[in-house]
Amino acid sequence: MPDTRVATPFAIEVGPNLTDGRLLRGQRSRRTITDQAVQLASSYGLEGLTIGAVAKQVDVPKSSVFALFGSKEQLQLATVAAGRQIFIEEVISPAQRGTAALERLNDLGQAWFEYLGSDVFGGGCFLVAAAGEMDARPGLVRKSIAAALSEWIDFITALIGDAVREGALCSTVDVADLVFRLNAFGMAANFHRQLLDDNASVARGHRAWRTELERNQTSQGAKQCR
Amino acid sequence: MPDTRVATPFAIEVGPNLTDGRLLRGQRSRRTITDQAVQLASSYGLEGLTIGAVAKQVDVPKSSVFALFGSKEQLQLATVAAGRQIFIEEVISPAQRGTAALERLNDLGQAWFEYLGSDVFGGGCFLVAAAGEMDARPGLVRKSIAAALSEWIDFITALIGDAVREGALCSTVDVADLVFRLNAFGMAANFHRQLLDDNASVARGHRAWRTELERNQTSQGAKQCR
Repeated sequence: MPDTRVATPFAIEVGPNLTDGRLLRGQRSRRTITDQAVQLASSYGLEGLTIGAVAKQVDVPKSSVFALFGSKEQLQLATVAAGRQIFIEEVISPAQRGTAALERLNDLGQAWFEYLGSDVFGGGCFLVAAAGEMDARPGLVRKSIAAALSEWIDFITALIGDAVREGALCSTVDVADLVFRLNAFGMAANFHRQLLDDNASVARGHRAWRTELERNQTSQGAKQCR
Repeated sequence: MPDTRVATPFAIEVGPNLTDGRLLRGQRSRRTITDQAVQLASSYGLEGLTIGAVAKQVDVPKSSVFALFGSKEQLQLATVAAGRQIFIEEVISPAQRGTAALERLNDLGQAWFEYLGSDVFGGGCFLVAAAGEMDARPGLVRKSIAAALSEWIDFITALIGDAVREGALCSTVDVADLVFRLNAFGMAANFHRQLLDDNASVARGHRAWRTELERNQTSQGAKQCR
């Protein structure tokens, strides 16, 4: 079987070659700060992410945070990038192990719902929270969140396309509709868990993800493929 | 057929009997302000809803807004109540017309997705935005949004229960799973439309709502009911 792994979305960026000690320390300091910033933003939103609030949280002078990021917007952008990186580690990487696309779709569902049910972020999935907050505020921050969401949608779309080509999902499937539904289940699970303290919603969302895939599997009999 | 209409969730509250002219004017002034506040919050969040920002928007002195609401929290609570009222008028009322529960579920889907695709709120569904923003911030405002979301979930749950009792939906249906999925499609449609400017998602969400109901209809043949 040819390797149909998707290379483009969520390609992990390789940082600059850090042989310069000062650059390396700067990079580590930025990481320490964005790790805290992403937690703050998960609960209090990206708008609450001022240089002052982050400096207080990390317990460093405001001038240090300012020296590292330069502006609130740059700090917000670095925080979105950090949230995306955590998502890659927690959700995308586990779905890169399998060889068959359908297997990888199942692994992706498993990893995503585990992540949504975990407490990786204190206030629920950082990217879902950020998206809800920034969707009506034009600017670079909104663009960076929209790009991360598009990347996620493209990633699922490519996996489903591969599963159809591999003959595991029906060729009659409406790919965009299927992606929309799979994504909807995770977003809603996050929402119910965070707002209604409804932990059962994570299992419910995962069950819906699996059922939706099963309904479109060729192995379930040709009648399902219409 | 007995009238199985749900009376409890979304019962429209009757205000005080306003024969006193001053009370009536106060009520009207509050309404003028919350109408604007709900629009502001739809784009900029409930946290951005300060007495000063609202006074500027409505073009009245801050002291007038303060006299009518007393605090930022009371203003936020009144804004959530106003958003809920608009939702009742736009989405719940159209689903009260039919007599059969399945017909009302179809009407509800029609009204909800029309509302999500409209520009009733400049920044997308106010309640979805508010829920995403406030879910990790304990307090009365979060409680009022959680109550509105619970009311919505209870409303769909009761309609599905009625449709099962009326024999239109399979008695084997997992009601909580079905409600979760129906709700997920609207939330995701709002999200895609607002963040990715993807207007097709509204039709996609509505199609998913209809398909999900059809899959559980007794008229689709007993095999669907397992």
